[in-house]
Amino acid sequence: MTTSTSSRGALILAGGRGERFWPWSTPERPKQLLPLASGGRTLLAATFQRALQLMPAERIVIMTNAALVAACERECPGAIVVGEPMGRNTAPAIAAAAAFFGDSDAFAVLPSDHAIDDEAAFVADFDRAFTLAAREPLLVTFGIKPTSPETSFGYIQRGAALSDRVHRVARFTEKPDLARAQEYVAGGQHAWNSGMFVWGKRTFMQALSVGRPAVAEAFAGMSFRRGDERAFEAAIGQVFSTVESVSVDYAVLEVAPNVVTIEAAFDWDDLGSWSAWARRQPVDARGNVTWGDAVPVDCERCVIVGDGAPTAPMGLQDMVVVTTPQGTLVCRREDSEQVRRVTEAVRARKGRP
Amino acid sequence: MTTSTSSRGALILAGGRGERFWPWSTPERPKQLLPLASGGRTLLAATFQRALQLMPAERIVIMTNAALVAACERECPGAIVVGEPMGRNTAPAIAAAAAFFGDSDAFAVLPSDHAIDDEAAFVADFDRAFTLAAREPLLVTFGIKPTSPETSFGYIQRGAALSDRVHRVARFTEKPDLARAQEYVAGGQHAWNSGMFVWGKRTFMQALSVGRPAVAEAFAGMSFRRGDERAFEAAIGQVFSTVESVSVDYAVLEVAPNVVTIEAAFDWDDLGSWSAWARRQPVDARGNVTWGDAVPVDCERCVIVGDGAPTAPMGLQDMVVVTTPQGTLVCRREDSEQVRRVTEAVRARKGRP
Repeated sequence: MTTSTSSRGALILAGGRGERFWPWSTPERPKQLLPLASGGRTLLAATFQRALQLMPAERIVIMTNAALVAACERECPGAIVVGEPMGRNTAPAIAAAAAFFGDSDAFAVLPSDHAIDDEAAFVADFDRAFTLAAREPLLVTFGIKPTSPETSFGYIQRGAALSDRVHRVARFTEKPDLARAQEYVAGGQHAWNSGMFVWGKRTFMQALSVGRPAVAEAFAGMSFRRGDERAFEAAIGQVFSTVESVSVDYAVLEVAPNVVTIEAAFDWDDLGSWSAWARRQPVDARGNVTWGDAVPVDCERCVIVGDGAPTAPMGLQDMVVVTTPQGTLVCRREDSEQVRRVTEAVRARKGRP
Repeated sequence: MTTSTSSRGALILAGGRGERFWPWSTPERPKQLLPLASGGRTLLAATFQRALQLMPAERIVIMTNAALVAACERECPGAIVVGEPMGRNTAPAIAAAAAFFGDSDAFAVLPSDHAIDDEAAFVADFDRAFTLAAREPLLVTFGIKPTSPETSFGYIQRGAALSDRVHRVARFTEKPDLARAQEYVAGGQHAWNSGMFVWGKRTFMQALSVGRPAVAEAFAGMSFRRGDERAFEAAIGQVFSTVESVSVDYAVLEVAPNVVTIEAAFDWDDLGSWSAWARRQPVDARGNVTWGDAVPVDCERCVIVGDGAPTAPMGLQDMVVVTTPQGTLVCRREDSEQVRRVTEAVRARKGRP
């Protein structure tokens, strides 16, 4: 029942700005290019390596922003790396990248800014998704069992069961309020939307032509091959400047009738904060997570990153201390999801006369 | 009664390593070369400017270590700046530098690592000390009214009164334990030893020849003039390699009978920690002391220094956060006197294979 690898492809989305890891993350080195994955790999490299267990490198398209093309090529040798002329959200990005796949191909869509450690379970679930997508015109999503009432995630409500761990999707809900998120977690019918998908190219383009006809039309008939990367970028440059910026969730998933969801058997973490990253890292005898030139003195349960010079907190508990040539962040672990407040303050300061 | 300025001199001691302000302080830029004085001046420049109100620049000798000669020359234009071949504590340094003064001159000894803001009171007290030293063979010290039971300072116990705010010295006590320091503060008979002195060259050398004859002998008869700096350094190079390393307190003050003390009318702070420095700095609306590229987000009563890149603490109270290209320090304000623990940990880490 497994599809042959020759008809499989993957699109890795690697264009995010990833500012949650300021000051480690920079425009030149956003979250997906930081060594946040297990084994000290970048999240992008880890995503690529997972994809390589499903298909060869030449079937993998990396879509990023123009400034990161070279960095992504280093992380993903052999892949097709293309730079978006401008950010237009996921629906146009996926529709454009589909031009590298054949009409009868199925391809996975993989964000590159989260962590997954159980690669065997990942490969098994994606094998299953490719089989489903090859057999029927289905849009396959992956639902993550929610462990907390996150209000910044999208949720998938399961409908009728199709087979073990596979259901039709009853409804998508983006970023519910806390009360609703708590209901979802308690009710057991909802999963987090991981943002990973598998579908046939034809199935996807057809669903897009229903949800956003103009977007589908803009990329219809485009066909590119490995080696055409710069021609592709030139071709989509014009299209992107006029096409609607819209997510694949709004444009396709929330309107299509043929969406199914697999309850993921693998772990998943979106690493939304320094704290979230630290929870997956090894700790020292006093519970500290350290990276680089970190010199904790009498600290407990701290997250300490020293990139370039010694970072030496003394007598602290449950704090995040990160120093890079870009700047220094210090906050309580519990506040580390609010890093946006810091990046905004740093930008505001730059704007000062 | 005032002595003419032509017979006055000053020796500014500027050789300290000053590690209490790590990571701002470095071997190349120790405490006395940091802009910790009021008006953003370096402590050395502020010391020099105070001395200039008592005598012209060419009567001021700056003694530092060889690596800091150029930096001290920039801070103290017109002064005689000499580099010690090695650290030998204060008695040899003063005996050597005395070679730039005449036998009938009086000179002040001024450490360069503390803060004094009331310059008028400083000048008046030193004028008085020079007058005393010119009239009688006295070793004049300056006592600071103690405001807390510091155990890292030396204390001067006052004896018989000679005139308003001038007493004979009954006894010196170095670094008492806390109980004794508390007694001293409560008793009202003790003052902190500021490490500043005024004496005639002849008076000093005579007292040294009693306390440490070999040290006095090693420098006896040496005479140098402005322009002789490098010859002076060569001459003392040999002497320093064999002379005893001993403080002027042990070698002279604790044994001489002719020591008097002036109750200082000026303020004085040894700036022994980040906290001590911050107490003398202006604060923002939320009580934060900031320097350089400091970007506090929702912080209160913090000390924030950003040298070279934005230093952005979020949601902190009563903390010290200092980032320089040399490293990052984070601790509670109340712990900032323990920075030595950090510098030792940073050094230990460098020694690792």
